[in-house]
Amino acid sequence: MNPGTQGKTNFFEEVEIQGHIIDSLLLPKVLDEILTQGGSYLIKEIRLGQRQEDISYARIEVHADSAEILERVLDSIHDHGAIPTTANDCQAVEADMDGAFPEGFYSTTNYRTQVRLNQEWIDVEDQEMDCGILIDPQGTSARCLPMTDVRKGDRIVVGRQGLRVFPAETQARSNLFEFMASPVSSEKPKGVTVREIAQAMRRTRESGEKILAVLGPAVVHTGGVEHISQLIRMGYLNVLFAGNALATHDIELALYGTSLGISADHGLPTEEGHEHHLRAINTIRRLGSIRTAVERGVLKSGIMYECIKHRIPLVLAGSIRDDGPLPEVITDVLVAQRAMREQVRGVGFALMIATALHAIATGNLLPAWVKVACVDINPATVTKLTDRGSIQTVGVVTDAEPFLRALVAELSK
Amino acid sequence: MNPGTQGKTNFFEEVEIQGHIIDSLLLPKVLDEILTQGGSYLIKEIRLGQRQEDISYARIEVHADSAEILERVLDSIHDHGAIPTTANDCQAVEADMDGAFPEGFYSTTNYRTQVRLNQEWIDVEDQEMDCGILIDPQGTSARCLPMTDVRKGDRIVVGRQGLRVFPAETQARSNLFEFMASPVSSEKPKGVTVREIAQAMRRTRESGEKILAVLGPAVVHTGGVEHISQLIRMGYLNVLFAGNALATHDIELALYGTSLGISADHGLPTEEGHEHHLRAINTIRRLGSIRTAVERGVLKSGIMYECIKHRIPLVLAGSIRDDGPLPEVITDVLVAQRAMREQVRGVGFALMIATALHAIATGNLLPAWVKVACVDINPATVTKLTDRGSIQTVGVVTDAEPFLRALVAELSK
Amino acid sequence: MNPGTQGKTNFFEEVEIQGHIIDSLLLPKVLDEILTQGGSYLIKEIRLGQRQEDISYARIEVHADSAEILERVLDSIHDHGAIPTTANDCQAVEADMDGAFPEGFYSTTNYRTQVRLNQEWIDVEDQEMDCGILIDPQGTSARCLPMTDVRKGDRIVVGRQGLRVFPAETQARSNLFEFMASPVSSEKPKGVTVREIAQAMRRTRESGEKILAVLGPAVVHTGGVEHISQLIRMGYLNVLFAGNALATHDIELALYGTSLGISADHGLPTEEGHEHHLRAINTIRRLGSIRTAVERGVLKSGIMYECIKHRIPLVLAGSIRDDGPLPEVITDVLVAQRAMREQVRGVGFALMIATALHAIATGNLLPAWVKVACVDINPATVTKLTDRGSIQTVGVVTDAEPFLRALVAELSK
Amino acid sequence: MNPGTQGKTNFFEEVEIQGHIIDSLLLPKVLDEILTQGGSYLIKEIRLGQRQEDISYARIEVHADSAEILERVLDSIHDHGAIPTTANDCQAVEADMDGAFPEGFYSTTNYRTQVRLNQEWIDVEDQEMDCGILIDPQGTSARCLPMTDVRKGDRIVVGRQGLRVFPAETQARSNLFEFMASPVSSEKPKGVTVREIAQAMRRTRESGEKILAVLGPAVVHTGGVEHISQLIRMGYLNVLFAGNALATHDIELALYGTSLGISADHGLPTEEGHEHHLRAINTIRRLGSIRTAVERGVLKSGIMYECIKHRIPLVLAGSIRDDGPLPEVITDVLVAQRAMREQVRGVGFALMIATALHAIATGNLLPAWVKVACVDINPATVTKLTDRGSIQTVGVVTDAEPFLRALVAELSK
Repeated sequence: MNPGTQGKTNFFEEVEIQGHIIDSLLLPKVLDEILTQGGSYLIKEIRLGQRQEDISYARIEVHADSAEILERVLDSIHDHGAIPTTANDCQAVEADMDGAFPEGFYSTTNYRTQVRLNQEWIDVEDQEMDCGILIDPQGTSARCLPMTDVRKGDRIVVGRQGLRVFPAETQARSNLFEFMASPVSSEKPKGVTVREIAQAMRRTRESGEKILAVLGPAVVHTGGVEHISQLIRMGYLNVLFAGNALATHDIELALYGTSLGISADHGLPTEEGHEHHLRAINTIRRLGSIRTAVERGVLKSGIMYECIKHRIPLVLAGSIRDDGPLPEVITDVLVAQRAMREQVRGVGFALMIATALHAIATGNLLPAWVKVACVDINPATVTKLTDRGSIQTVGVVTDAEPFLRALVAELSK
Repeated sequence: MNPGTQGKTNFFEEVEIQGHIIDSLLLPKVLDEILTQGGSYLIKEIRLGQRQEDISYARIEVHADSAEILERVLDSIHDHGAIPTTANDCQAVEADMDGAFPEGFYSTTNYRTQVRLNQEWIDVEDQEMDCGILIDPQGTSARCLPMTDVRKGDRIVVGRQGLRVFPAETQARSNLFEFMASPVSSEKPKGVTVREIAQAMRRTRESGEKILAVLGPAVVHTGGVEHISQLIRMGYLNVLFAGNALATHDIELALYGTSLGISADHGLPTEEGHEHHLRAINTIRRLGSIRTAVERGVLKSGIMYECIKHRIPLVLAGSIRDDGPLPEVITDVLVAQRAMREQVRGVGFALMIATALHAIATGNLLPAWVKVACVDINPATVTKLTDRGSIQTVGVVTDAEPFLRALVAELSK
Repeated sequence: MNPGTQGKTNFFEEVEIQGHIIDSLLLPKVLDEILTQGGSYLIKEIRLGQRQEDISYARIEVHADSAEILERVLDSIHDHGAIPTTANDCQAVEADMDGAFPEGFYSTTNYRTQVRLNQEWIDVEDQEMDCGILIDPQGTSARCLPMTDVRKGDRIVVGRQGLRVFPAETQARSNLFEFMASPVSSEKPKGVTVREIAQAMRRTRESGEKILAVLGPAVVHTGGVEHISQLIRMGYLNVLFAGNALATHDIELALYGTSLGISADHGLPTEEGHEHHLRAINTIRRLGSIRTAVERGVLKSGIMYECIKHRIPLVLAGSIRDDGPLPEVITDVLVAQRAMREQVRGVGFALMIATALHAIATGNLLPAWVKVACVDINPATVTKLTDRGSIQTVGVVTDAEPFLRALVAELSK
Repeated sequence: MNPGTQGKTNFFEEVEIQGHIIDSLLLPKVLDEILTQGGSYLIKEIRLGQRQEDISYARIEVHADSAEILERVLDSIHDHGAIPTTANDCQAVEADMDGAFPEGFYSTTNYRTQVRLNQEWIDVEDQEMDCGILIDPQGTSARCLPMTDVRKGDRIVVGRQGLRVFPAETQARSNLFEFMASPVSSEKPKGVTVREIAQAMRRTRESGEKILAVLGPAVVHTGGVEHISQLIRMGYLNVLFAGNALATHDIELALYGTSLGISADHGLPTEEGHEHHLRAINTIRRLGSIRTAVERGVLKSGIMYECIKHRIPLVLAGSIRDDGPLPEVITDVLVAQRAMREQVRGVGFALMIATALHAIATGNLLPAWVKVACVDINPATVTKLTDRGSIQTVGVVTDAEPFLRALVAELSK
């Protein structure tokens, strides 16, 4: 009991936090959380780096009126990287059933996380938010595990002891993706935005990481098929996530020259137009698969065609509004999630255009350090996508086709 | 060959159309389609009802420059109810494989449709858009069949011969649902809108039809759980379609008092709030089902609780952005569609609030004559939902909770 | 009294309507209005053109339960072109005061209108909605007059007698601007839309009519200044309407390289950026005018520069959110309206980009037959602008800069 | 020259900053700005308050590669409260002309600002953003002055010397208005939001400050007139800003029972409806003023009626899209700004509903410490309004009428 706190708070714990805690806003956020959650604090020690490249350090005594509040405060600041000074190994218990975590399981974020095993800090693999952490039987490695994949007997981390999280830090910023407040306004210079995204794609390719595209059907409706095809041919698109609609309208366009019945050529509805997408699906189903349609020369252009020609891994995930669906569509959403999870490994940049459902689903699977550009004409969609707490996500409120046109032009330079 | 057309068009066919063809805009739409699709017309006979309750009739000669264009024009006006004067029985061929229609299959609309079998016009059952039509082995009845449900040997209607469609007609309108141009503006008197929807719900209940609610998670986030619970208790909600998110946040609210981590009580984020939804799902999965959670007294309030207590049929359809999911969630989207298809039978009114995915999926399954009210704060969502060509769909751009509060107050009068 | 109506309605009047009354939806609209307003009808005679180029004609007896309702119905259908068969000269009374119409004044639409003077039908000049009609002292001509411009003694038309309105008719449509339902969806092929607008601009220039641009500040923020400058230099922009913000940020960009403090070059906020617009205004005010700034070589590029260099008439209308404002800004809104009214004469095409206030204000002044393209990234703005009842207005939901880039490219072909 | 910086930066200046610099994010923002603008820093001294109520202090050496960059950095961090340790009196020069500031004028923010005069720090009065600062002839007081009000000879502050700004600080937050990140999401519990706004209004009234309402016409269209009338009668609305549209449709509703021609009673368009607003304006213009209409018993209900009955100061500001306008409308926007500026004095709370133009104009005039609630169904409008950098502004994405209904209910408790 610290007499300086005048008997107000009998419950306290000392935590420490280090890194670029001032200019990355970690320290302010921690102090803010303590107050918001009903605690108070004493800064016991602070060592600020004199220059921006120096690491800073703070030791803080967190006080609360009850053990319960103290627990709440500590849990809350833990996600911002504040951990008790008295570190122990993390705790794990065995799952008592399939498909569910044991009570008290630790729920993951998308930030880099370490667990303490045998007094050593070890990186958690397959970082993904809203999972549990599985400790391997030898007790030497750890990885994120979705709830549905839990098997009885799995050793799952509980509580926050022996765990530490490394929230994103910001450095001196010189481009869009290093910028803290992701701009989602439609009132920004668009040429610059396109240039920055092109640059990030170039760097990703050079570094040997994969570029993932997540596309909605408006890419086809607005006339963006040829642009995406070019990105594939230029090697700037290495994995594709989409749904039945994108694939269907892409194939409809290749087979009938329409998209949702609207002629790509003159922009007017065509006769029977509303049926074209259904006939396109039926044609492919009769052939057995999109792949067969390409091999037999039925499908000769478009995004699906290019993906198959260039062996781009493709995950078409099903949804309840699908007609058909196309044979390649994975109709079980858990199976689709697993396929997506498989493919996000090694992704260094994700370009999400004109889709809320697939983009949010993908965002849930990506660790915070993967750069993401979310492009949508609806600011509400962009806001939802950029709310995932990553400083690496940039939202662009703009129209799909003109954006893609400019992006291809920029990458062709 | 009609000499009056001066040799311009060698290809023509006579069609007829009847009903309230003037004030329901059927005739103008037909004439417009003919021109748009590249044909021309001669009105051979027209008998207009003198009064608005009279049925009118028109006989029109449709001309085109080629057989192909003529076919296109005829197909196009067929959906507006114009059928050749020389009617034959509809044609059906056997499906040559599972899961796909034969070439040339007729693709359905959501309007009332009849097929001519043995020279008699017979109603198509289970009317649903984007399906084929299955003729029973006896050749005496017909029903809509989704592509995925086709079995080899099924007799499927091809072409448009012997088929007629009855597009919606409008009468002298005295309330919102009879109004032609569905108002989606946010700048309409809201009290009136609520009153009309309440009235439609009362009438539906009185007529013995079911009221379907399709709800998104914002119903929970904005504070609408108690209002929906009241609708259930008052008997104004007979079937519920939703996804994992609505159910999860409803249960999160019941168990933790938060929704997506935001306290329903004071509107501020709570500690660990972002984990509550995951813990809620885990709790239910540990118990085995939502039903068990209610039976064991773990879940004591909320929409899910009321549904189970009042035996409201519930379809929770999965999506790729689901965490968990809850045990009752149907993870295969085709299975979920079938469950929804089952439950839309007998629905007379559908109230869709704050969901795009589930609302559009449901809209695809409903025949055009079911009244639908789409409520969303985002005009883009409302527009998408009201674009399904039914005069019975009314879009309301407003906020979920205040709308529900006013609706419950109106229904309680 | 018509015995056929069985004494129900003692009040009736015969009206006639002619033109393309079926495919232009005029007749259906008239019948619909009669019912909606509480009347009923008997179609006495109908002569439909056999071919689409033929003029049709209908004579209708309108019935109502009271003189008041009958009056209401007749007033209501008058705007759709239905006029009593017994035509008399229009009636005018002298204004009894400045700045207000006499009671019972006729309120104009933006459709072509004729008044009957000395038993002859004469076109109303300066057609504009929400005005009165002024008859010249000789009683031989008529023109629209805004309320504020009324002078005591002016002869103002009252009632609807001797007045006829020609609502827009549609023909066989082959391009966007002839299309009835203006597409406002963001999910349309954008290349086609741009091509159609470019074509309309070319035709307008060839016909010797003026192209008006109405621009909001997002044109500058998104990076569109150079595109607009090119349109001016290419002769595709003949009149400009804007506000203080567009002009200020255009000048800010020319003087400081920023727009609202955001660098056009690297897209990041610059130091003091928020002050640049104020310093830009101050600089121009110190010089006395934008014109002087150009003449003295202070302002060397941008939209304002090009307007002055190419003698493009420019109306900068003030609003209460203006800083400064710039010297050329007309701070009295009635004076600004008059300046705009002056300049819309001879305009054949209006391109409105990224502005609600100025676009709506301009829309109010334009007759219905002027083609308008409204470009905005916010669908709500586009909907408001396209709701003015003109089939010549096309709404495009897209981003300002990419749209302009594509438009300039298309026009440069 | 500090040897520790290894000759990299020859240009530096020492600044200091104090307050709740950690948890108010002032220090991180300052460090961030220094880096963003191209400078670097050395933290010379830091004294952190141990508890959250303690004032902290930092002394920082700012380095740059050139005098120009250093100047830029210093200007940039000045707005965040960092001022040179060597403080001098502020500098002022005489305006050399009417209506424009001298070169180098200091451009104000909406934060509390002090100037140093005769070595004493003095508060700047009438704090308003985007103004200059006028020093009185005696050199003992200072106030904000709009550009247009400058008179030749006025003493205007130039540069940043002897000036300090107090950016908003945050404390332990317990309600909406103390919350840092203003929630603009439509997915928040609405009951809580209404309760907090009601509480802020009660506190404002109790403290003797004025409540300002800024209203757009959708308040009338959605059916909110009676709710606003009640707020006035209950004493919760002390000043009203609006435009011609709000006043016109309010009067249209009182005189004709319609709003923009839509019946408030049954929600359907009425005959001649589009003319009602014009006839309403004409009626008032014929009477000379809204006041006269009330006095003569012509106008018997509505917002305008209640304002006049309860002597609520009313500013109706003109815009170029106005019809008429009503006699009370101030058509010169600079005169209107002055009238608004006059009335914002003493305002402690501003409720802005369903208006972008008037809300932004009012936001420009308010100091940062006035609490503001912005209510609009369009998130884009709310975002624009909450972007003014005040932690006291809360955005609520919801529908006008239901919000007002709930607010009145809450205030009536």
